[in-house]
Amino acid sequence: MALIVQKYGGTSVGDVDRIRNVAERVIRYRQQGHDMVVVLSAMSGETNRLIALAKAVNPEPDLRELDMLLNTGEQTTIALLAMMLKSKGCDALSFTGAQVQILTDNAHGKARILNITGERIRSEMAQGRVIVVAGFQGVDAQGNLTTLGRGGSDTTAVALAAALGADECQIYTDVDGVYTTDPRVVPEARRLDRITFEEMLEMASLGSKVLQIRSVEFAGKYNVPLRVLSSFEEGEGTLITYEEDGVEEPLISGIAFNRDEAKVTVSGVPDQPGIASQILGPVSAANIEVDMIVQNIGEDGTTDLTFTVHRNDHDKVMGIVNAVAKTINAKDVKGDRKIVKISLVGVGMRSHAGIASKMFRVLAEEGINIRMISTSEIKISVVVDEKYLELGVRALHTAFELDEGVNIN
Amino acid sequence: MALIVQKYGGTSVGDVDRIRNVAERVIRYRQQGHDMVVVLSAMSGETNRLIALAKAVNPEPDLRELDMLLNTGEQTTIALLAMMLKSKGCDALSFTGAQVQILTDNAHGKARILNITGERIRSEMAQGRVIVVAGFQGVDAQGNLTTLGRGGSDTTAVALAAALGADECQIYTDVDGVYTTDPRVVPEARRLDRITFEEMLEMASLGSKVLQIRSVEFAGKYNVPLRVLSSFEEGEGTLITYEEDGVEEPLISGIAFNRDEAKVTVSGVPDQPGIASQILGPVSAANIEVDMIVQNIGEDGTTDLTFTVHRNDHDKVMGIVNAVAKTINAKDVKGDRKIVKISLVGVGMRSHAGIASKMFRVLAEEGINIRMISTSEIKISVVVDEKYLELGVRALHTAFELDEGVNIN
Repeated sequence: MALIVQKYGGTSVGDVDRIRNVAERVIRYRQQGHDMVVVLSAMSGETNRLIALAKAVNPEPDLRELDMLLNTGEQTTIALLAMMLKSKGCDALSFTGAQVQILTDNAHGKARILNITGERIRSEMAQGRVIVVAGFQGVDAQGNLTTLGRGGSDTTAVALAAALGADECQIYTDVDGVYTTDPRVVPEARRLDRITFEEMLEMASLGSKVLQIRSVEFAGKYNVPLRVLSSFEEGEGTLITYEEDGVEEPLISGIAFNRDEAKVTVSGVPDQPGIASQILGPVSAANIEVDMIVQNIGEDGTTDLTFTVHRNDHDKVMGIVNAVAKTINAKDVKGDRKIVKISLVGVGMRSHAGIASKMFRVLAEEGINIRMISTSEIKISVVVDEKYLELGVRALHTAFELDEGVNIN
Repeated sequence: MALIVQKYGGTSVGDVDRIRNVAERVIRYRQQGHDMVVVLSAMSGETNRLIALAKAVNPEPDLRELDMLLNTGEQTTIALLAMMLKSKGCDALSFTGAQVQILTDNAHGKARILNITGERIRSEMAQGRVIVVAGFQGVDAQGNLTTLGRGGSDTTAVALAAALGADECQIYTDVDGVYTTDPRVVPEARRLDRITFEEMLEMASLGSKVLQIRSVEFAGKYNVPLRVLSSFEEGEGTLITYEEDGVEEPLISGIAFNRDEAKVTVSGVPDQPGIASQILGPVSAANIEVDMIVQNIGEDGTTDLTFTVHRNDHDKVMGIVNAVAKTINAKDVKGDRKIVKISLVGVGMRSHAGIASKMFRVLAEEGINIRMISTSEIKISVVVDEKYLELGVRALHTAFELDEGVNIN
């Protein structure tokens, strides 16, 4: 007997048959004696349909009113699931974000949760009812409806699990867990039974788009055990928790990669304090996110600065940096849109030397030239030419014994 | 400078172009300096679409959850109109029924308004904003979403007008006002400039389905001047108010009729107290509404009782009454599904004799046999054979000088 929060995404509630499947799973859990809170997204495609409707009114619709409109998407699915549960004899009640007082700030379209009053949920749950809550939405202090941004239903589920002290927060999606890397690139990729919050954050931010990153941060902060499962097939999924003492962690949990990178190099800059901020200040002032930054000092007393940005920002950044280059007497500015980032992620590497050198050796053996390197406690990232992405990821996946059928512990 | 509540029905907000038209009209009123509250229905067809979705889950969906689902219909249109107003430079805010605290009882699907807190509306209006409110919906004391039943948006508009002390409540629909009778039956039917609440109630309950009857009662009770107008063409529409002192009222305002009638006659009942209740008690116990009731005493000491019901209830009533007839020793029970009711309505008839006899004479001259008669202070109704409906209505419309082009005052 536990308190379980389950979250179902848009494809899991895409039509009446799928909503029936969700109801049947919820009832199975309920019959095992668990207290159940179910968080739903809008039907797949519905949010995009509503946005198109708003854009027919105005290409840049008012954000408060857009939130009012988008709130209808989840309100539809929660009503349908609660009806389905009741028609199968399972007592249930649906609630909007406003009704269970998911209090947010007033940043319409990307609101942040400030507080959740779980009282109504607790008292209805004590009556034996399944509670169905609209994900993605909240209400500000003035009573205006808000939304949490794309993927916000995950955040709702984790925040409710934290507020209610749930034993587990289960995120049902169309994949059956978190993989060592993208199975479309490496067919031997393996589902992980467990992964730590920190590793999951590195994997998610690097492009493994299983979970919304904010929800993982939230789960980690409030120590809510998070499980990613498939809503279409049975299985244990992947459990995301803190590292347990005494459990020997695998060296490497997975390999993340990101295709949408571009790099910019400013070379021959007279080396003096403040050069990096003179170059990068105008870039961040233009609201462009900079990822990796590497600086080398050459023998002639000049320095080279290289950094990566999202590929879509490449042209804009080149314009900004070319202007700056003149004022600081840099020799040259070069951009490269055909690069990618590959990262090894694993809490195990904290206590093991030699991971980085093995990574570099594996890539060298395949003839892959490394353009940039960046490391953190649980991650090593390299930038390589785009054409080497698949080759590099597959070689590393095999070399670090992540392939299906290999026991890594 | 007045406070005006405008209500637009489903066809008036059926697509983005029509919502633009509504926005433009609202802005014209606003530019004249009026404070504006706009109440909207769901887009035409949307409520039926949502009901079909619910019935795909369960043919008899849970009513609380159905209300949760139906609430999304108006929430969509209010968001779109508020966006449209803002994109045209007119400051506006949309509100659900729950947000402006349209407090109702918890009779889901047919809730009644208990109270409206107009505070938020007043304070936002004082900032110069147009207030857009979702019709048809409310919230109960526990915070559950409710709906007011079909046509409930009219009720929302009138209730808001009453709560806010509005100068006029304008109901925009697809007809340009209230007519002396149905123009499809009498092409010469004329739009009325004014009609009293009492007349409108008689017209509405008799089948002129321009306004929801509950909203007219509400407007009368709180003395809210109500105006019915077309949202597709310009015009003054029909103003519904109390009779003004000193204004000479027309004798007859209009002719209502109802095709969906059936009559049942129980004859040869030994005349004794309580016979009517013995016959009609079981009918109303079966939740069947009885309209006209006529009783005659024959010369042989027996009585005949005739009453009308909705045509759909005819067979059920015949079964009930046949059973009762045996226990009270009635001679015969006869049903007739092919009858209709025609009614003259007008507050002017209060102070004029001779209306009834003129009505009977006009019908007799056309060879129309009157089956039943029933009168009230401002209405005379007759039941005639169905085949005489059009002939009877047209003859009366001409005889009482209601035809277009005739000055009746």
